[in-house]
This record gives sequence, C-alpha cells and structure tokens, in this order.
Amino acid sequence: MTKTLAIGGYMKIDEQALRTDLDAVMASSLDSALALDDAERDQISAIAYMGHAAFGPEQMDAFPNLGLIANFGVGYDAIDVAAATARDIAVTNTPDVLNDDVADLAVAMLLMQGRRMRQGDAHVRSGAWAEGESFPLNRKMSGGKAGILGLGRIGHEIAERLEAFKMDVHYWSRSEKDTPGWDYHADPVDLARAVDFLVVSLVGGPETENMVDARILEALGENGVLINISRGSTVDEGALLDALEAGKLAGAGLDVFEGEPKVNPRFHALDNVVLQPHQGSGTVATRAAMGQLQRDNIAAFLAGRDLLTRVN
Amino acid sequence: MTKTLAIGGYMKIDEQALRTDLDAVMASSLDSALALDDAERDQISAIAYMGHAAFGPEQMDAFPNLGLIANFGVGYDAIDVAAATARDIAVTNTPDVLNDDVADLAVAMLLMQGRRMRQGDAHVRSGAWAEGESFPLNRKMSGGKAGILGLGRIGHEIAERLEAFKMDVHYWSRSEKDTPGWDYHADPVDLARAVDFLVVSLVGGPETENMVDARILEALGENGVLINISRGSTVDEGALLDALEAGKLAGAGLDVFEGEPKVNPRFHALDNVVLQPHQGSGTVATRAAMGQLQRDNIAAFLAGRDLLTRVN
Repeated sequence: MTKTLAIGGYMKIDEQALRTDLDAVMASSLDSALALDDAERDQISAIAYMGHAAFGPEQMDAFPNLGLIANFGVGYDAIDVAAATARDIAVTNTPDVLNDDVADLAVAMLLMQGRRMRQGDAHVRSGAWAEGESFPLNRKMSGGKAGILGLGRIGHEIAERLEAFKMDVHYWSRSEKDTPGWDYHADPVDLARAVDFLVVSLVGGPETENMVDARILEALGENGVLINISRGSTVDEGALLDALEAGKLAGAGLDVFEGEPKVNPRFHALDNVVLQPHQGSGTVATRAAMGQLQRDNIAAFLAGRDLLTRVN
Repeated sequence: MTKTLAIGGYMKIDEQALRTDLDAVMASSLDSALALDDAERDQISAIAYMGHAAFGPEQMDAFPNLGLIANFGVGYDAIDVAAATARDIAVTNTPDVLNDDVADLAVAMLLMQGRRMRQGDAHVRSGAWAEGESFPLNRKMSGGKAGILGLGRIGHEIAERLEAFKMDVHYWSRSEKDTPGWDYHADPVDLARAVDFLVVSLVGGPETENMVDARILEALGENGVLINISRGSTVDEGALLDALEAGKLAGAGLDVFEGEPKVNPRFHALDNVVLQPHQGSGTVATRAAMGQLQRDNIAAFLAGRDLLTRVN
C-alpha cells in the first residue's frame, strides 16, 4: 500500500539496500518514474530522489499519496520545496556527511590551480623535464587572502582548512556570523575586491542564480582565482569565460557547471582552470553515508517517527 | 681581489642582483666554473651555488681562497660539508623561506592523488563526462591517518596543514619532539604500518639514502600512499615502482626523483601517481626570498659579519 520509489542512478550497494531495507521500486530517472502507470504511482508514499531534473508541482501531483521526497545530496534546489510544503510533502536532504569531502576538493582545486600541478604532471610525463625544459615558477598560495562566498557548514570547513595555510579569511553571508577573527563583508563585490581567492559555497536555487556576475569577477581581478563547489547556477558562466579568456581573471577551479555534465566546450581549451566532474562528495565513504541518511529518513517516515534532516 | 662566483641557472632577476650587488662572475654549471683559468679561480672567495652536482673536496680545492659556499635551497646534500669544514669553508643554505611552499605542494599532491583530480580534469576536458560517462568514486581524505617521516621545519608545516583536514598525525624523527598530540614512532616501519598516508620530509644525504625501502612500503600497504617532497635519494625507487605496478601500494605523489630530471620512464605509465618537476619551492615569491637570503649570506661574509644561516 505505502511504497517507496527510488529515482536515480544509484550505486549497486545503495540499490541493494533500497530494495532490501525499503522494498523500493527502482526508476532510473524522474521521466521513467512518471511513465509508471497510475496504479503504481498511486501506491508511492515516499520517493528516494537522486538527480538534478526539476521536481516541481506537476511531478508531485503525479504521485497523489506522496508524503516524502528524500533527496540524495545536501543541495535540494531541483525540488520545489514550496510546492512540496503546500502539498504536505516533507523534503529531506543529506547534510553534513559530505562537508569534509567538498571542502577537501575546494582546497585541492585552489592549490592545484595555483601551483599548476596538472601542467607539472604533464611536464614530467611528457619527458619535457627530462630533456632539460624548465617548468615556470608559480604562485605562492600560503599566506594569501581567501574569500568565502556563503558561510554555511561547507564554507566553514573550507575556511578552517585555509587558515592552516595561513590565509586571511574573509566572507560574505546573508548575515554576519560569530567567527574566529574572519572578516565579514556585507557586499559580495567588496569581498571579491578584498581577496586573491574567492570560493563559492552558496546554496543553489533562484535566490543565488548568477550571483557571481561580471562585477564580482572584475572586483576579483586579474590576480584573482574563482573556486566553485556549489552549483553551476551561482556563477554567470559567460562572464566567467570572457574574463578567463581575456586574462582578466587569473584562473578558476570548477566542480560544477551550468547544464552539467554538458560543460561549455570553451572551458576545454583553457590552461588556467582546473575542471572536475562534480565529484565534491564523490568518495566511497561519503556516498555510502549519504545513502544511509537518505534511507534512514525514509525509514523514519514509514515508521511515523521524526525525520532526521527535514528541510521544510 | 675577493670575488664572488655564482654557479647555476639563476632567474634573470637574481642574476641581475648577483651582478649588481655582489659584482659576481656567472657560471652556468659547476663544470664550467671549474673550467675557468687558474688566475680567475684564485680570486674567488665566495660561491653562490645552485645545483645538484656534487661539490666535494676536489671541486673545493680548485678554489684555493674559497671561504663560503652559499647554497640556493634548504637541502645542501650536494655539498660535502665535512670537506668544507676541514678547509675552513663556511656553508650556508636558505631555510624556512620555502617551508610554506613545499608543505603546500605536499598536501596538494596528497589530495590530488586521493581524489584523482588529474583524471577528473581529463574526464571533463575529453568530453567523456558530457557524453554521460560517470567518474568513479574516490577516496575520502579528511579524517585519515597521516605519517610524517622526518619532523623538521617542513614536516611541521605539513603536519599542521593535515590537522586542518582532521587527520591523525603520526611521525618519526631521530628523537621524540614536543608536539601537540602527535604520535611518535621510534621505528619508521611502525610509522608506516600505523598510517594511510606517509609524507617523506627527511633531509637528503647518505644517512637517509633509500631509507624508504621495501619494508616500509610493505608496511604502508595496498591502501597506503607515499608522498615525497624531500630528495629522490630517500626512497628506493625500484621498490616503489615495483609496489605501485603490482598494486601493493595505492599510490604516490612525487616532487623529487633519483637522477632527476631524468625520471625513470616506468613512472610515466602509472595512473595512480602524481608527478611534479621538483617545484616544491617553485613560486616567484619564494624563489625571490631564497635568492635574497643567499645574497645576504654572501654580503655578510664579504663584510666580515655573522652569517645568517650557516650550517657548519
């Protein structure tokens, strides 16, 4: 009667747990879930959701007995939470368990870009170094000025790591926070102007769409580096590509893109960027913890207990 | 009468300063310095040395009035310090100014190897990601166990950074140090057995030659990763290559190699290593600071003042 539907491309181990622990029906995408017949959709009371396809009012109404959408991931911008709330549908996500991994990747992209380590590796592998070709000097990273745009849990983790590199930490957030000596900037443009490295750790969704615009990139300047581990939507990619191609920005490290995985091919040709395939939380341990938290939320819902990480 | 000779491939800005500030004679290598005629060599009282060619008794005796060898770099294993001391030749190096850069690169190699970021970048650039090919999950780095082999100034800097990644820090050093909760291991093999990631920050020279041998690599094990930012001589490269090729070690991040820059081509084919062209101190700011410290030592020597960073 009450059934769980799991939507998305789950790891084998998660698919097995979804089937075994929750007797879940599997659908590879939201579209294929919507293609189930009416009788099947009527039975669904909980959805385990993994994906970036928009899950809005129309999709919700296709499941008349839906009471929970349990998102796999901390960012739930694909889900129209207001529409869910209006329909008495709870939404949960998987926060915190992925903070370390995402912060690790942000710091690693920053160092890899600054020290040109992709190029360094190629210089050795190609034999150029062995043939006596010297590798250009790079940029000193420790002691720089770092800005965190969006000081949530992940932003905090990034800032704490950068402090160990003796960086001055600056940040913008919707409100000033109680932080250990980090400089608050009420205006993101002021933040960009104050720092060498700007790390975007905003939430996704309409309120932050294209927040990193041409003005912020100009303020960051020709010695500035942009790191984005949040959502592709937070950055005006056209403005970013223009700045990178024109040398008006020193470089970028990007784990997320507009319309990913279909990355704008203009990025492919750039030497001053580090590109990653949205693998911020992409470790075996963390994905397992995310899957467990998603299933724990569904189990709590099915048992009538309090949800662990509800967002509405 | 007392002249300075600068040996090595200096940056333009350093060459200019050596000529202007110290009226130095330039030689591109130790061999070409030795090829100067007797009268010229007799005049030399101070040598600014940059290079890895062995500077031993025979070379020293070619400069009968030599009183100082000022090395560019913290590692002075190319210079036979005992032979210098026996000849009343002072030796200086350029410590501390490069600690941050080397530590940054060590941590960056560790993260880049673990999160497979070279491969991630290639996955995006090749278009594989856009075509729907998923990128494999990687290894969680934060929270791991890190071992520092050789807890000098650079080892300290590395350990402090890794603590910000919530790693447990273990170390070996010739003697136990007063550290903030780091675990001392009196035996390097025990250290390797206790950790996931082993960072080599030993001094070079005969006493540490091939110190990281097959036994240590076996203790580090198939989930272990070796990082070396010290000298190629500290690691038994044949044993390392065997272990990497056989999957008996998870991976490595190497900035230094035996016989560099002629890197063993067996490394080129390995996917589980990050290779860097000995660029630990290779930033514009740090190389400038190293050059300044080298020249400051020579200026102090010529003026009869105390040397700044004497090693003998």
